[in-house]
Amino acid sequence: MSASPIYLGVIGVGGVGTAFLQQLARLPNAPQLVVLARSSQTLLAPTPAYSPAIPAADWATASATPSLTKSGALQAEEIATYLAAAPGRAILVDNTSDISLARQYPTFLKKGISVVTPNKKGFSDDLSLWKDIFASAAEGKALVYHESTVGAGLPVLSTLKDLVATGDEVTRIEGVFSGTLSFLFNTFAPASGSSDAQWSAVVAQAKELGYTEPDPRDDLNGMDVARKLTILARIAGLEVSRPDSFPIESLIPAELESLPSSADGITQFMTRLPEFDAQMANIKDTAEKQGKVVRYVGSIDVAAKAVKVGLQYFDKDSAIAGLKGSDNIISFYTKRYGANPLIVQGAGAGGDVTAMGVSADLIKAVERLR
Amino acid sequence: MSASPIYLGVIGVGGVGTAFLQQLARLPNAPQLVVLARSSQTLLAPTPAYSPAIPAADWATASATPSLTKSGALQAEEIATYLAAAPGRAILVDNTSDISLARQYPTFLKKGISVVTPNKKGFSDDLSLWKDIFASAAEGKALVYHESTVGAGLPVLSTLKDLVATGDEVTRIEGVFSGTLSFLFNTFAPASGSSDAQWSAVVAQAKELGYTEPDPRDDLNGMDVARKLTILARIAGLEVSRPDSFPIESLIPAELESLPSSADGITQFMTRLPEFDAQMANIKDTAEKQGKVVRYVGSIDVAAKAVKVGLQYFDKDSAIAGLKGSDNIISFYTKRYGANPLIVQGAGAGGDVTAMGVSADLIKAVERLR
Repeated sequence: MSASPIYLGVIGVGGVGTAFLQQLARLPNAPQLVVLARSSQTLLAPTPAYSPAIPAADWATASATPSLTKSGALQAEEIATYLAAAPGRAILVDNTSDISLARQYPTFLKKGISVVTPNKKGFSDDLSLWKDIFASAAEGKALVYHESTVGAGLPVLSTLKDLVATGDEVTRIEGVFSGTLSFLFNTFAPASGSSDAQWSAVVAQAKELGYTEPDPRDDLNGMDVARKLTILARIAGLEVSRPDSFPIESLIPAELESLPSSADGITQFMTRLPEFDAQMANIKDTAEKQGKVVRYVGSIDVAAKAVKVGLQYFDKDSAIAGLKGSDNIISFYTKRYGANPLIVQGAGAGGDVTAMGVSADLIKAVERLR
Repeated sequence: MSASPIYLGVIGVGGVGTAFLQQLARLPNAPQLVVLARSSQTLLAPTPAYSPAIPAADWATASATPSLTKSGALQAEEIATYLAAAPGRAILVDNTSDISLARQYPTFLKKGISVVTPNKKGFSDDLSLWKDIFASAAEGKALVYHESTVGAGLPVLSTLKDLVATGDEVTRIEGVFSGTLSFLFNTFAPASGSSDAQWSAVVAQAKELGYTEPDPRDDLNGMDVARKLTILARIAGLEVSRPDSFPIESLIPAELESLPSSADGITQFMTRLPEFDAQMANIKDTAEKQGKVVRYVGSIDVAAKAVKVGLQYFDKDSAIAGLKGSDNIISFYTKRYGANPLIVQGAGAGGDVTAMGVSADLIKAVERLR
């Protein structure tokens, strides 16, 4: 409750990282930024005072500040040692999507440094890493917040954690967890009105609009959704061993799976995708004949311990069918909520809303550490 | 972070209070229950040790425990003095809907006792009380959590607070905030299929099912919704002076407004309500002719500083029109979220889900105080 200073290290200044720094600069009573790192460069507030702090602005402004110690890339261990020696509690904000940094969370946590991050890699990899992260947090009396790993700034993990912590029985979680796949199916097979766009044309349009990863196969393979489901299932109490340890329906045609991951491979993939338009049209028509639409969803049946990711048909007046744009929707079915689920819906991707989840987590961590 | 003991006083053992005590009994690392009070009786853990604590079970079990100090109703001031003298931080959980107890929150807060409550009265009354509550919390370094005052256990206030705290610009909040009115209109004018039930018959059915207050006029007058809007508007930054300082459309026909509030008055009201069925049918038909349905909603236009509560028409494929049962839906339109709002939906009333919001708030308060 007292205003003891908190020291902050931030790694990553991409889209989310840049938006986060802008939000940080406007937070009242923000912690002191003492580390700011990007892939090849690191800024540090001078020791032993850890003062003056780094201005929370964009990278260019921060790195032009005199008085800072500058170096090339530091090892995670070095950053942890620096933060642990600060004259107060410390927090690491990891705004990268780097699995190797995530593997170092236990190093930070054991030293008492809390971790706040939208990086889903660490929480959705081997179950042993998940366990190590939370055991290390307990050992170091440090906090872990990762709201933005699922649904960006939407209150998804906090809601699930509240349900579990207060003793509700979560029976089923279902939803659309990828903004990219939401856009693709809302456009390809809208619930109201109709579209005669071919599947490959919709994918090409999404790629042009920047809605897909640079390689659209990174969205179409379903792994991003599978990683989010892994995190939700673990919070709901299921010991999911890996993000590929359950059925994942890939939207990459089997015939194109062997194309290389190079730029040339991307071009070949996009060129050959129209060959499979008839397949997707067939799936859409089958749904249509049942008065339904097809959507790419993830679901967790907690009692059956079954997690799956793939195509499913939905009634046209269902909430999932009615999604707009690239929105996510997540439905929690629980004993207390009964037949109608608790639903959270809205933009689940984008720099600003992802950074918002990180900033809100940071505020909560600071409130608990002060 | 250390496990210093926290002392808990709970007032109210009605529907929400009883469900809360059941949840409290199952919380790991729960605070020590040292006060349990209902309207005419109070149980206290013996001083000066504040130990043994009161078992968190139902009232009957708790009150049959030997070793406790029992008395009649205590003044709020006396309970505050007792809690403030406990050998650790203290929290008051107010599970009543009592405005007079809510007026005493500043007394508790100034003594450093945090307040957790689903009681919306204190936060939706005069703006001066709202200001006094938060100024007193700051003075006493105490916390205030009241998630369940809007939408019960749904993450409504926490989401709005996160949006505001991280610097998003909330432009508009709109939704169905009353489970009772949700049920009435979803039944009277369903978005899919049709109903030829008369309005008065639907109200009578809801009353029989226990979905309305004992006096249905307490739902139909719109004041419950107006109080929730007042709370949301204040968190969004609007200085709403009173819950009746903006337009509220009452569903009590003007001709019946003078009926007494007695049991006899309720009977007269229900008997005469069918006289107005043609009026409501007319509203429903007008909506129908536009391809729409009528719903009872609240809305806040932040820029225009306009709050209003009443009937409005919605497209049949809109999320509000598609609500089921007695669900609530709350849409937040913000600068970051753009054209599609952040939506929270689900049961917004009932003992278990309301108590869940209280328990989740209690966990957060305890995490910060330890």
